Amino acid sequence: MSVIDDSKNRQSLQGLIDTDGYIPQLSVDCTIFGFHKEKLRVLLLKYHDLDLWSIPGGFVFHDEDLREAAARVLYERTHLNDLFLDQFHTFGRKERTQNNVHQILLKNRGIEVPKDHWIFQRFISVAYCSLIDYTISETFPDALNESIAWFDVNELPSMAFDHERMIRHGLTHLRRNLDTQLVAYNLLPEKFTMMELQKLYEIVLGEPFRRNNFQRKMLSFNRLERLEKFYDGSANKAPYLYRFKDGLEAFPD
Amino acid sequence: MSVIDDSKNRQSLQGLIDTDGYIPQLSVDCTIFGFHKEKLRVLLLKYHDLDLWSIPGGFVFHDEDLREAAARVLYERTHLNDLFLDQFHTFGRKERTQNNVHQILLKNRGIEVPKDHWIFQRFISVAYCSLIDYTISETFPDALNESIAWFDVNELPSMAFDHERMIRHGLTHLRRNLDTQLVAYNLLPEKFTMMELQKLYEIVLGEPFRRNNFQRKMLSFNRLERLEKFYDGSANKAPYLYRFKDGLEAFPD
Repeated sequence: MSVIDDSKNRQSLQGLIDTDGYIPQLSVDCTIFGFHKEKLRVLLLKYHDLDLWSIPGGFVFHDEDLREAAARVLYERTHLNDLFLDQFHTFGRKERTQNNVHQILLKNRGIEVPKDHWIFQRFISVAYCSLIDYTISETFPDALNESIAWFDVNELPSMAFDHERMIRHGLTHLRRNLDTQLVAYNLLPEKFTMMELQKLYEIVLGEPFRRNNFQRKMLSFNRLERLEKFYDGSANKAPYLYRFKDGLEAFPD
Repeated sequence: MSVIDDSKNRQSLQGLIDTDGYIPQLSVDCTIFGFHKEKLRVLLLKYHDLDLWSIPGGFVFHDEDLREAAARVLYERTHLNDLFLDQFHTFGRKERTQNNVHQILLKNRGIEVPKDHWIFQRFISVAYCSLIDYTISETFPDALNESIAWFDVNELPSMAFDHERMIRHGLTHLRRNLDTQLVAYNLLPEKFTMMELQKLYEIVLGEPFRRNNFQRKMLSFNRLERLEKFYDGSANKAPYLYRFKDGLEAFPD
């Protein structure tokens, strides 16, 4: 967990209400899952002054694609760059932003905003997810937040808005779409063995597989291409290498 | 194709610009696929005065869940009710609504709207899809449109906005998610035979399967529960009945 200097904070909060350039009542949020060895984690930011954590999110400029906004917001808040972001759901229940964190943050800092400003109204949020190796990703918190940390997906702290639901749904999406580009792009090398793929599946799905069953199931999806054998110089039987076939990209916006 | 009286049209267009109750720059659109015998079709509406078709869509009230808005809009535009609507993607490219149909419709009718009204700005649209048996669904067009019709998904007419892309992505979503509730809920009876399931897959996916391969693949998903045999009184070997296991519902918003 890293902590930064608080001095830029007021300026950034003021930025929250310079909102002319944004589409009203719309936000993007990024559920970033981190995978390494036996752990599946999610990246969270902690607000100043509040005992609440959130996933990295922000607003959408009028002249910006939705997907561009997600990438920009993620970079601004965490310094993560160049991720494969997969849009998985848009959250639009009318009561989802009732615990309006922005309102509390602004009030605590003595910043006045007209009560009818759209920042106090309900928000629709478009959620993206990604799965990365968290040991090779450097992150830092932005001025709105005092800390950033990876949490075990089964041990989340108190979350703002409906961000706990977002994480739960993001995880469901991840589990349903393991056999697509989402995983291949960020985590596995271009060519991988069936055992490497199986390890990844077991950790994300949280259950073990029998080796033969797993291989049969993977091949039945018809999404893997078998390549040459992988010789590592050991006495063991050399396994085949595989790669994902083309044509399984996420939807463009 | 049914055609209705044009007299309500001006009133309804005026309704387009009484927009205080709506969330600005946000719409919902419904991609309704129809399935019957050997055909896969999509439900389209044709605008008055324009040689353009669109999928049923509309705006979201401030005090309305996103999903409620989709169901309401679909009902208002087509009279379809009580469908299982599966949210599949939010379309947010900045140029997606450049051919602003509303602007043309209003101009043709001589209705004046301030140029800076949000109805002329870009829109983000949350898209839902459903798959129904089109022979048992009665539909009618609303006042904004002169006709409503089912089109072969491979032979679409000229479409407004990015609705052709929406249909293409909706179809991809449908094909990827055939083994979920989406299909079970609207189309298949609660209990069905493997042959009934196979027919459905073949038409939606547009390719034939070998019977044994299909059955093995379906069972490998671990989403079907085998029930009793189905005796229809014929001399043929009685097939088993199946049903979908629970727990495969779409994401709630």
